[in-house]
Amino acid sequence: MRNFSRGRPDPLPREKNDCAADWLYVTAALFVHRKDTNMSWRDNLIKIEPYVAGEQPDKKDFIKLNANENPYPPSPMVQAILSRFDSGCLKKYPDANAAPLAAKLAEYHGLERGNVFVGNGSDDVLALCFRAFFNSDKPVIYPDITYSFYPVWCDMLRIPFETIPVDKDFRIRAEDYARPNGGVVIANPNAPTSISEGLDFIRKILDANRDSVVIVDEAYVDFGGTTALPLLSEYENLVITRTFSKSRSMAGMRIGYAMGNKEIISALYAAKDSYNSYPMDSVAVEAGIASVEDEDYFRETLEKVIATRARLTEGLRGLGFDVADSAANFVFAEHGTLRARDICEYLKTRDIYVRYFSKPRIDNRLRITVGTDGEIEALLAALKELVND
Amino acid sequence: MRNFSRGRPDPLPREKNDCAADWLYVTAALFVHRKDTNMSWRDNLIKIEPYVAGEQPDKKDFIKLNANENPYPPSPMVQAILSRFDSGCLKKYPDANAAPLAAKLAEYHGLERGNVFVGNGSDDVLALCFRAFFNSDKPVIYPDITYSFYPVWCDMLRIPFETIPVDKDFRIRAEDYARPNGGVVIANPNAPTSISEGLDFIRKILDANRDSVVIVDEAYVDFGGTTALPLLSEYENLVITRTFSKSRSMAGMRIGYAMGNKEIISALYAAKDSYNSYPMDSVAVEAGIASVEDEDYFRETLEKVIATRARLTEGLRGLGFDVADSAANFVFAEHGTLRARDICEYLKTRDIYVRYFSKPRIDNRLRITVGTDGEIEALLAALKELVND
Repeated sequence: MRNFSRGRPDPLPREKNDCAADWLYVTAALFVHRKDTNMSWRDNLIKIEPYVAGEQPDKKDFIKLNANENPYPPSPMVQAILSRFDSGCLKKYPDANAAPLAAKLAEYHGLERGNVFVGNGSDDVLALCFRAFFNSDKPVIYPDITYSFYPVWCDMLRIPFETIPVDKDFRIRAEDYARPNGGVVIANPNAPTSISEGLDFIRKILDANRDSVVIVDEAYVDFGGTTALPLLSEYENLVITRTFSKSRSMAGMRIGYAMGNKEIISALYAAKDSYNSYPMDSVAVEAGIASVEDEDYFRETLEKVIATRARLTEGLRGLGFDVADSAANFVFAEHGTLRARDICEYLKTRDIYVRYFSKPRIDNRLRITVGTDGEIEALLAALKELVND
Repeated sequence: MRNFSRGRPDPLPREKNDCAADWLYVTAALFVHRKDTNMSWRDNLIKIEPYVAGEQPDKKDFIKLNANENPYPPSPMVQAILSRFDSGCLKKYPDANAAPLAAKLAEYHGLERGNVFVGNGSDDVLALCFRAFFNSDKPVIYPDITYSFYPVWCDMLRIPFETIPVDKDFRIRAEDYARPNGGVVIANPNAPTSISEGLDFIRKILDANRDSVVIVDEAYVDFGGTTALPLLSEYENLVITRTFSKSRSMAGMRIGYAMGNKEIISALYAAKDSYNSYPMDSVAVEAGIASVEDEDYFRETLEKVIATRARLTEGLRGLGFDVADSAANFVFAEHGTLRARDICEYLKTRDIYVRYFSKPRIDNRLRITVGTDGEIEALLAALKELVND
């Protein structure tokens, strides 16, 4: 057994970290070491358990409600930018810091340029945040039920972490975060619970954690959550992350960003520069700007998703589901008698894909993305057949 | 002084690692710790010395020969793809593994799909290679004069490394690489020397390193270097990396890739998945495919650059420069009497930017990118004035 001292995640004592990580992994190790002594290059390969992503059916005609994608296309201004993009400029390296998009986002949020960092999707931004801010020997803390990538990054970066149980209604209790830690991460609205907490909740966590960087992951905030943006000027240890993948219908373009005080944002740029100077391509920068400039389309799309979410929530409740009040573009639902796994499998036979997590506490819940009205009607009709069967 | 045990680069004993790293860094630490005891979140920020990139003048009309960009635009087929790209598909996540582009590259190189990994520029690919392959306690070895990011990734990932001096003519001696190590990285053609070594050289290094992964960084190979591709079937520990940034004129699009045996490539995918599932956007994937499909344009562009390189080399030699025979899209030149730094500063006054490295052994050399014929004529004319002054 080789040691794990360099560039390789320590084998974390997962049982101490609740099971937030376990359900993300398959149990088999990826690489089985061969006994051949001439094969020692294999000994130095990364030993990492592969992350299991959501199912992507290998067929065309199905209703995809399992990845929290937006059912509507991006702003027509994004199409216009692509259509007239001069490919000649691609011969040059892009702006290393995606500065034109960062400047546009700063203006949009009423911040200064130095308060914004743009990255290759919010996964890239969050991974860089973990690397840039969480260099303590104390554990980073976050809820046991939350975004599945947090433990993956902790493992990758050898960051100690502890998960804190949400309550029986899947609510995060701010008072649980008043304990020694090396950093705090709160998704708000949380995923996969869809529940949003208010500004007082975030303020309470920030007040209890003046000595740690507190990341508020606002991937879903545009769908009705409460943003922590008003607190940025008050708390210099607050970092807010956002994505273009959900509310801006641009999952395929890979744009995420972080907002915080200039010192914090500088650390993110330093972390980025030590990995890849140019993560953002020139097309993504221009397309991102086009999206931000079309506020009307953005608002209109959000309203449509929110209206459909109301119909979905009501429809599910009418069929005997318990559905949390969602502030995101998905709902988190449990049926009174039918098992979530069975419902998920049944829906697949109808070419409808929703997300099921075989994880303790939530293994009888479904995460259902808000699609178009037509998609949600088809889902509800299929569920009605099942329930009345 | 806090310890450096987690997620933070150890302060490497740089003096033991030659000075390959030092010249990349500014000497001042990025973050000065404040004495205020209420500010301990700052203590957990990443401590990293910023990488100093090439100068990007803040003006429009200048001749940019300092970043090894291609002076010609990408294939017209790239423009066609962008112009007709349906932005509607951006609402969905891209293929997590950029599979259509990876498959196209596999076909192009006569490999199988499982032999190819596509990433967000070759910097992303190389950083993932370092993380996936270099997990030994023995040092990774590479030349003292080579691509400046290698020590940056070693620092970031806490990989021990040793640099091996190139000879007085900047040639890498294969026999120097027959020593215990945790991995080998060879840029071929090397940068900034522009010198390419042959297949026997690579074979010699591979034969001496059956127990290590050997990365051959072929960023510049298309301009006349010798590729290690024929050795892939023979050596299972060989990994070859490439980029679309130079020969394919797509630095602004961020596409790089690696080729190797399937087990090695699987480790790269695992490393990628533990960081960011979707580094490649949908537009880049399509644009990359379009470039690969236009072989005629690709060859034509390479021939133009190679022809201009011959004129540049001859012109510089005629003005008293020593110029290595280049197999890349840049030349590495030293004047008989004039100092490189002075030439570099003089050229700036003529709005011509070339690259100068204030590093021992090469601090009297210039790295000059092969531009268009017109740009190179302007450069030579300016240099003629200087030399005859």
